[in-house]
Amino acid sequence: MNQHVSEYLSAGPSFREGEVIERIESFRSRRPRLRDTVVTLAHGAGGKASAALVDAVFVEAFRNPHLENLGDGAVLPLPGGQRLVVSTDSFVVQPLRFPGGSIGHLAVHGTVNDLAMAGATPRWLTAAFVLEEGFPIADLKDIVADMAGAAEAAGVEIVTGDTKVVPKGAADGLFITTTGVGVVPADRDLSPHRVRPGDRVLLSGTIGDHGMAVMLARGDLAIEADIRSDTAAVADVVDRLHAAAPSTRWLRDPTRGGVGTVCNELAQATGLAVVLDEDKLPVRPDVGGACEMLGIDPLYVANEGKFLAVVAPEETDAALAAVRSHPLGTEAAVIGEIAEDPGSTVVVRTPFGGTRIVDMLVGDPLPRIC
Amino acid sequence: MNQHVSEYLSAGPSFREGEVIERIESFRSRRPRLRDTVVTLAHGAGGKASAALVDAVFVEAFRNPHLENLGDGAVLPLPGGQRLVVSTDSFVVQPLRFPGGSIGHLAVHGTVNDLAMAGATPRWLTAAFVLEEGFPIADLKDIVADMAGAAEAAGVEIVTGDTKVVPKGAADGLFITTTGVGVVPADRDLSPHRVRPGDRVLLSGTIGDHGMAVMLARGDLAIEADIRSDTAAVADVVDRLHAAAPSTRWLRDPTRGGVGTVCNELAQATGLAVVLDEDKLPVRPDVGGACEMLGIDPLYVANEGKFLAVVAPEETDAALAAVRSHPLGTEAAVIGEIAEDPGSTVVVRTPFGGTRIVDMLVGDPLPRIC
Repeated sequence: MNQHVSEYLSAGPSFREGEVIERIESFRSRRPRLRDTVVTLAHGAGGKASAALVDAVFVEAFRNPHLENLGDGAVLPLPGGQRLVVSTDSFVVQPLRFPGGSIGHLAVHGTVNDLAMAGATPRWLTAAFVLEEGFPIADLKDIVADMAGAAEAAGVEIVTGDTKVVPKGAADGLFITTTGVGVVPADRDLSPHRVRPGDRVLLSGTIGDHGMAVMLARGDLAIEADIRSDTAAVADVVDRLHAAAPSTRWLRDPTRGGVGTVCNELAQATGLAVVLDEDKLPVRPDVGGACEMLGIDPLYVANEGKFLAVVAPEETDAALAAVRSHPLGTEAAVIGEIAEDPGSTVVVRTPFGGTRIVDMLVGDPLPRIC
Repeated sequence: MNQHVSEYLSAGPSFREGEVIERIESFRSRRPRLRDTVVTLAHGAGGKASAALVDAVFVEAFRNPHLENLGDGAVLPLPGGQRLVVSTDSFVVQPLRFPGGSIGHLAVHGTVNDLAMAGATPRWLTAAFVLEEGFPIADLKDIVADMAGAAEAAGVEIVTGDTKVVPKGAADGLFITTTGVGVVPADRDLSPHRVRPGDRVLLSGTIGDHGMAVMLARGDLAIEADIRSDTAAVADVVDRLHAAAPSTRWLRDPTRGGVGTVCNELAQATGLAVVLDEDKLPVRPDVGGACEMLGIDPLYVANEGKFLAVVAPEETDAALAAVRSHPLGTEAAVIGEIAEDPGSTVVVRTPFGGTRIVDMLVGDPLPRIC
């Protein structure tokens, strides 16, 4: 366990299950509370501070059943029984271009993936740009070309947009906000409420690639490694999963905050335990090495072309084979399972028979990653 | 004609119709071209430079039939024949709070109005925030409360969102991007292609209030006047209009760039003339006075709670009565009509029998107005 795992746990690197169960009593149903008086970088990191801000400011004010699901997309019922999904994200990554992609790729992939995670077939995107005065038109054209290419590859159309310009110094180059609209097939039903003990947790590939690629591209670390972002639209892979494992319960892309954060959100939403096997987690050696040097747990590092799926036990083999059959899923793995206890908690089993709790992050190991 | 009306026209303050027709030959079908190498504030002003940027960068790259309509919202067909409208806008106004409203009100009203202008009943909004590190949480809560109040009053739900935080100095307080989704009633068909010579142009109220309120709130003008923004959701007023004038051809809210810009877009989209009567334009005396002192034509000043409608001649009286029956439309007026000539041009008839051409703006008299 490294310094980022939790401010609440002072235990050593691993401890036995009995201890875990005692200790989690103090976490259970603990909702983070907002105590800050100004916005900090941690509020944008996707962890505990983000959750506190969202709870105290946005959910409180906008209170409605869609918002309280707190998924990455809202499912909206239309007259006639059709269901839409709508999802929005702002992209503020620095640098704007990094090995494996650009802010333009992220702005399309991120939103397309959120639609797919909510069960929808992605159809349309909107794109709103905040540009800083002086931003080079040639760079803007390159980023927009990345968006156009990513949208075409993902089978979505960018149908409307907006452009605002702010004076030099009032923004950092450009920010892009995309919103996606998709249509949910009639028979699809994804929800944390469908997750049951005994279900398996499937991960579509290696973790930490995007976060470490952006971190290294900033050049302020004395590490050289050939790490590329995994930014990609996973809707096609998800289609194969649904075809092979129609009982699939829940999907989520582990972006900001990584697999550790997303599993915590699942544990909280279900009241169940998410039990991961450390030696099943796919991590590229160079990503793992860079994380170790930086003291960052790859479980908390952002991904932009991966997803987690909770699948029914009897469909696990078919699900894994289907995801692995896609070029974006060749390194997919079953990384854990859902259990009754310890409720509302994420536990990692180490190869040595120990366990450790994986809490939500409080701080921000990797700011402005998307 | 003031300095902002046109860089192309060197004629005096007014000239006769015959001269107009000769002169417009040189404008007709002229599309602005992008020659800049960096983004300038003019690209965000909603005038000629904005159009050039959108054409050269976004339409070029994202080419699809939805985008080429260049309305404020895209109309999307669903299986089963239903039509959605989706619209997005980023809000970067400074100051964040001004007489009559805040960036929170604008972020809801602006997008709700865009949906209504495209013929839809507004239903859902998404809200994405880019926050600058150090922004006071209390101010954020106030702005979010403004959004919640505006959404409730407009009958829409804010269903999902996103929060990003950037380091101090990388943004200017906060930027909000909202995206709206609405449903188009089956019998509704709004399009510039339905506009015919003889149709009337209806304006729902006074012009220039929002732009001048923000301008004065910045405090860098030595003018004191009690001018309040008109920020409001006009969907209810538009409902009354549709009920009274079901043949209504086209709607648009004159935000950035004002009535002058929106009428130019209409003239270009239809190939027809938009002929306005100067003495019919409703302008509050204090707004008119402030504009005169600043040398700004109120035709180019932003509004956030007004709309323009092109209505059938035989439904004009009913349309005007319906709009005036709503508290937000008491000062509505028929301000002009559509004519065959001079094609693709906006002409203002002065009270003295003269006419002047109203071109699209090149520069930016009022930056960061929304």
